[in-house]
Amino acid sequence: MEISDSLKRIPSSYIREILAAASDKNVISLAGGLPDEKTFPIDLMTPTLAELSCMPNVFQYGATAGYGPLIDYLTTRFQLPESHSVMITTGSQQGLDLIARAYINPGDVVVMEAPSYLGAMQVFGLVQANIVTVSQNESGPDLDELEQCFKTHSPKMFYAVPDFHNPTGVCWSLATRQHVAALCIEYKVAFIEDAPYRELRFTGEALPFVSDFCPNDSILLRSFSKIASPGLRLGAVSGKSEFIAPLIKVKQGADLHSSVPMQALLLGLLQHEDFPLHMENIRSLYQTRYQVLFSALEKQLPENCTAHAVDGGMFVWVELPPCDTFALAKTLLANGVAVVPSPVFYPQPDQARAALRLNFTNATEEALEEAVSRLAQGLNQVI
Amino acid sequence: MEISDSLKRIPSSYIREILAAASDKNVISLAGGLPDEKTFPIDLMTPTLAELSCMPNVFQYGATAGYGPLIDYLTTRFQLPESHSVMITTGSQQGLDLIARAYINPGDVVVMEAPSYLGAMQVFGLVQANIVTVSQNESGPDLDELEQCFKTHSPKMFYAVPDFHNPTGVCWSLATRQHVAALCIEYKVAFIEDAPYRELRFTGEALPFVSDFCPNDSILLRSFSKIASPGLRLGAVSGKSEFIAPLIKVKQGADLHSSVPMQALLLGLLQHEDFPLHMENIRSLYQTRYQVLFSALEKQLPENCTAHAVDGGMFVWVELPPCDTFALAKTLLANGVAVVPSPVFYPQPDQARAALRLNFTNATEEALEEAVSRLAQGLNQVI
Repeated sequence: MEISDSLKRIPSSYIREILAAASDKNVISLAGGLPDEKTFPIDLMTPTLAELSCMPNVFQYGATAGYGPLIDYLTTRFQLPESHSVMITTGSQQGLDLIARAYINPGDVVVMEAPSYLGAMQVFGLVQANIVTVSQNESGPDLDELEQCFKTHSPKMFYAVPDFHNPTGVCWSLATRQHVAALCIEYKVAFIEDAPYRELRFTGEALPFVSDFCPNDSILLRSFSKIASPGLRLGAVSGKSEFIAPLIKVKQGADLHSSVPMQALLLGLLQHEDFPLHMENIRSLYQTRYQVLFSALEKQLPENCTAHAVDGGMFVWVELPPCDTFALAKTLLANGVAVVPSPVFYPQPDQARAALRLNFTNATEEALEEAVSRLAQGLNQVI
Repeated sequence: MEISDSLKRIPSSYIREILAAASDKNVISLAGGLPDEKTFPIDLMTPTLAELSCMPNVFQYGATAGYGPLIDYLTTRFQLPESHSVMITTGSQQGLDLIARAYINPGDVVVMEAPSYLGAMQVFGLVQANIVTVSQNESGPDLDELEQCFKTHSPKMFYAVPDFHNPTGVCWSLATRQHVAALCIEYKVAFIEDAPYRELRFTGEALPFVSDFCPNDSILLRSFSKIASPGLRLGAVSGKSEFIAPLIKVKQGADLHSSVPMQALLLGLLQHEDFPLHMENIRSLYQTRYQVLFSALEKQLPENCTAHAVDGGMFVWVELPPCDTFALAKTLLANGVAVVPSPVFYPQPDQARAALRLNFTNATEEALEEAVSRLAQGLNQVI
């Protein structure tokens, strides 16, 4: 049976392939985007897991928008105004997919930074959006380029990850956030703010969401994969209610609703008195690992390579002199370290600037040290 | 923000609306398709719920195709040949959605029986399929009409619910199953077999799947909502591996994977020694309720109305003389009983023959008796 035209446009995921290769025990993987299993707050979930046995209602069909008590809790926690609402999705990945399906016609322009999150490229690709990119600097998207792009292309949406961007780790400055929000309002472009890493800040103060500056022109996606557990597959999408209603309608066809026992489990976790302590522990662990990775990189990277410092998130971006990064990643894999080459993060891979994405959340300090040695050795061979 | 053209084609769900109205305490609802909460095998799930606390791996990101141990178990349980594989979906509703997205281009012809499952009409509508219908008789689809339809329209797929069809309760005969399979092979039409009610047979012997007669030209969807619990949101899709691979690719973008703790919970349940007893108990409960409903209908329905007997499933279909079934459903609701009028189950609602769908799984015997009294009273007023 021939596959659909929209699916034909989706390349098979290089990351999936490299992750498969990286499962070799002799390879240290900095390729994935996995939180450390040891950080999962299972102790804090255990009481709710036991209570589920006494909650037959959570095993019944549920509301498409989400489990009522969780919706109520998040509405308060997120301080949503009367005009806004929140819905629960099967991971924030589903939130993105619903947005694409509810709003994008083939050929509609969606703006992204380049490089950008692979999963977003997939869902917007599947609805045959015309993805237009703007370049990114240390404080976010290039603003002149962005305005020019809005003028030229009249895009429907601007999708971005302003907090600890995947793959670059860039955190947008306050001024950039305000400026982007103003542009979105002026040019009537919906801002799709994807914030899965926001809670993983280990240095400095949290900045407002971009959406805080354009609350009626944005949709905000939050993930519970990094602060609770990815296995639960829960995310939350919020925005003004008329933006959310079409997403609920698509979700009816997509999966009716997300797992209700998992939503009840998440609610119990978020309400647990030790949840803030759990968050501190995660941040502290990841900060230590980041520091180990980053200082090793600073010491050992060849001079023509640049590792970019971050204040949080899960990734460090290493820029390289022009080279074939796929061949490099292969060499590094043979050298016992898995990384992701930059072109996979570009909607137009041939426009990629040579770089590597390194993850620091799912390897021990010792492994990170050793990985950098292998990386430096490999780079010195090739570059 | 303007919604997508494909979403504009989807009418808002009348069933959702009537279900909302039916939440009134004075209304007995035969409108939904809910299993009885009391049948959920929570006792059988409790041991696994406790074990989850010791399984940190199920809280990590998982494989898109599903949790390995569950996949292995189902491969054996379903007796899949080497060439076939199974994947786990977020409810079998997602399986349908993935099939539509992976294979259907706008305008591609999908054949269904009329009436048909609303959720299927939604997902095929969202991908802008051209839905062509064939009529249904007591033993399944009209076979001459089906062959003519295959000849005329060269459809890509034939979607059907051969076991205890939603909404009519019809169970295809063995001869019809064999004939449909042969037609699908001859005309190269993929048979999409949706089997959520198959395990709810309370009379007679199980017939082979239609897919058993065309294993290389079919995709089979199974649900765990009726035998375990709908809240878990788990289904399974199987077929030859080259049919399944594109579904996995779409699922990567749709939600990465289904909840892993829920998959582990399901595995524990299916392996529990008392699971077969649990299934017997469900069947026995639903048989009793069906018998109560059906004999009350036979006694009290006006002469020009016909209730169709079933051997399993969740629904009884009551055919009526020509009338405005929406107005009738409204009158019945005011009379304290909620039912679903036939046009909502037709891709072309104006072609609907007047009928009502009655659910018998989620009301007590007393409530079913009372509901039929109210129904008969309302029908006598209107018809």
